[in-house]
Amino acid sequence: MSNEQRILRNALGSFATGVTVVTTRTADGSDVGRTANSFSSVSLDPPMILWSLAKTSSSFEDYRQAKHFAVHILSAEQSEISGRFASKQDDKFAGLEFERGEEGVPLLKECAARFECRTAYQYEGGDHLIFVGEVIGFSHSSSPPLVFHGGQYGRLVRQVQDDTSFEKRQDSLSPDDFIYQISRVFYQIRREAFAERQRRGWSGADYAVLTLLGHEDGRDVKAIRAAGSDRGDEITGETLAKLVADRLVRIDRDADTERAFLTEDGRQAMIEIVAMLKAAEAECLALLDENEVWVLKQLLNRLATSSASGWPPVRQEAVARFA
Amino acid sequence: MSNEQRILRNALGSFATGVTVVTTRTADGSDVGRTANSFSSVSLDPPMILWSLAKTSSSFEDYRQAKHFAVHILSAEQSEISGRFASKQDDKFAGLEFERGEEGVPLLKECAARFECRTAYQYEGGDHLIFVGEVIGFSHSSSPPLVFHGGQYGRLVRQVQDDTSFEKRQDSLSPDDFIYQISRVFYQIRREAFAERQRRGWSGADYAVLTLLGHEDGRDVKAIRAAGSDRGDEITGETLAKLVADRLVRIDRDADTERAFLTEDGRQAMIEIVAMLKAAEAECLALLDENEVWVLKQLLNRLATSSASGWPPVRQEAVARFA
Repeated sequence: MSNEQRILRNALGSFATGVTVVTTRTADGSDVGRTANSFSSVSLDPPMILWSLAKTSSSFEDYRQAKHFAVHILSAEQSEISGRFASKQDDKFAGLEFERGEEGVPLLKECAARFECRTAYQYEGGDHLIFVGEVIGFSHSSSPPLVFHGGQYGRLVRQVQDDTSFEKRQDSLSPDDFIYQISRVFYQIRREAFAERQRRGWSGADYAVLTLLGHEDGRDVKAIRAAGSDRGDEITGETLAKLVADRLVRIDRDADTERAFLTEDGRQAMIEIVAMLKAAEAECLALLDENEVWVLKQLLNRLATSSASGWPPVRQEAVARFA
Repeated sequence: MSNEQRILRNALGSFATGVTVVTTRTADGSDVGRTANSFSSVSLDPPMILWSLAKTSSSFEDYRQAKHFAVHILSAEQSEISGRFASKQDDKFAGLEFERGEEGVPLLKECAARFECRTAYQYEGGDHLIFVGEVIGFSHSSSPPLVFHGGQYGRLVRQVQDDTSFEKRQDSLSPDDFIYQISRVFYQIRREAFAERQRRGWSGADYAVLTLLGHEDGRDVKAIRAAGSDRGDEITGETLAKLVADRLVRIDRDADTERAFLTEDGRQAMIEIVAMLKAAEAECLALLDENEVWVLKQLLNRLATSSASGWPPVRQEAVARFA
């Protein structure tokens, strides 16, 4: 590939596409499948779609001779299928569940959409051949699509028009600020669990101890204090004495160390608080669809797990320190 | 359109696409432009692309007779351009900056990519005609693309593989939980500003008063107390007396009301805290690209501004209560 061609290919990659797998069956009964993103819908009446394939493709002759083929639009969950049919793997259908369509064309399951086609035209297109198929059967689901752009897989988020604009000020935050949004969502999800903590008379330090032990029981008391002060919760001897008196925590002492454990009551209390947090989280996230939740969590996770900005790396033990 | 055709159109809409505007110039010198998502790249050698147009389109004859046309792949910011060239508006180019290409074809600016084409083939495609163009010139930028799927505009987020899996437990949160992620990011962005509050000796209640006044100065003291208790900050007479003694707040009294105002020192302190929050926010968001930040904020905003779950509606006055 020349340098000019590489630049052209990058420019063409600016056009986002779905990802399809086109399957057919050869005259001698072999199943053939290729990943393609050169799909386009053409006509509604008669129903027609097209895709194109490089003339140098190893399966070029199979498609050129095929009277029928099927196009599968992949869902966001199917990047493995895309990789498989883009590979040089020998039996691409190994272990896949599929049905048979017209002339035995393999039909994959659980795609976002599927079109069974009769080859209508084959058109010259430079180093590719353009296959136009008449759609003789189709099905679709509401699965979010796998998307391809700039050589990478992506997921799609619906663009909602929002014309609200907020005054930008130096002396207060606006609903446009990420820190405003994130803290609002945080406080709202945490609201009931926080009220419950207050009803139970737990201070921030009390809660810090309980969450630390909820995650990893039997910790060294010194480690608990260190973890608390990292977050700004001062865990003192009185904090622990109060939790012991309330029968939420017990302390085991040996020669050099003191270790803290949740009592049955303590563990039950944490299960209740965590359940409240998760219920509020679920209620909140129900405002988005599954794909949007996936994207949101993926982006937040990249922020949460970054060790940039001198943030502590994510360790399992850090888990207990939040919410 | 028949019911069958409507269902087919929905199924075809499962294939995500970019959005293009195809322009040309007629023999009599009129500029023509249409939004199309039926674009597909075809060949690298020779460089070729295709798109298709309904034979019933009002500009069908213009494109059929054109020897040259240009395809513009729109960026995420250009949904207005998409709407304009999909409309029946008379002069679609009114007020738009554009250049002229081969034979005067209008070339729009600031797209994700642009391809100048010579008409190479026109192929039969049912109720559409397929235009294959040989690319005679092109340019592209790294703008994120506008995406179309299921009849709606969308934005794309790169799909990052993440194989980390976390144990699901009832008694503690996992880094997989949204509430964990969001609180981690929240605490981390807030960290320095929070430390600064503590250095200044401000309690949560003190800070609540200052943020409320930072956003709207001169509030009724009763309203301040009510807003504070909504969030769980108990704002007492002593809170206010301390802030007055520290010369951060002054209180004006008349017959029925007491109103609180930030002093110059108080406002300066809030500007400093808000600047710390915004700097930490910017540092955090620098981990994502511009498009990802847009998507993240859009999704969070939908959660933050929802009035579901009995959450208070977003009011400007609520702004002060966060972070």
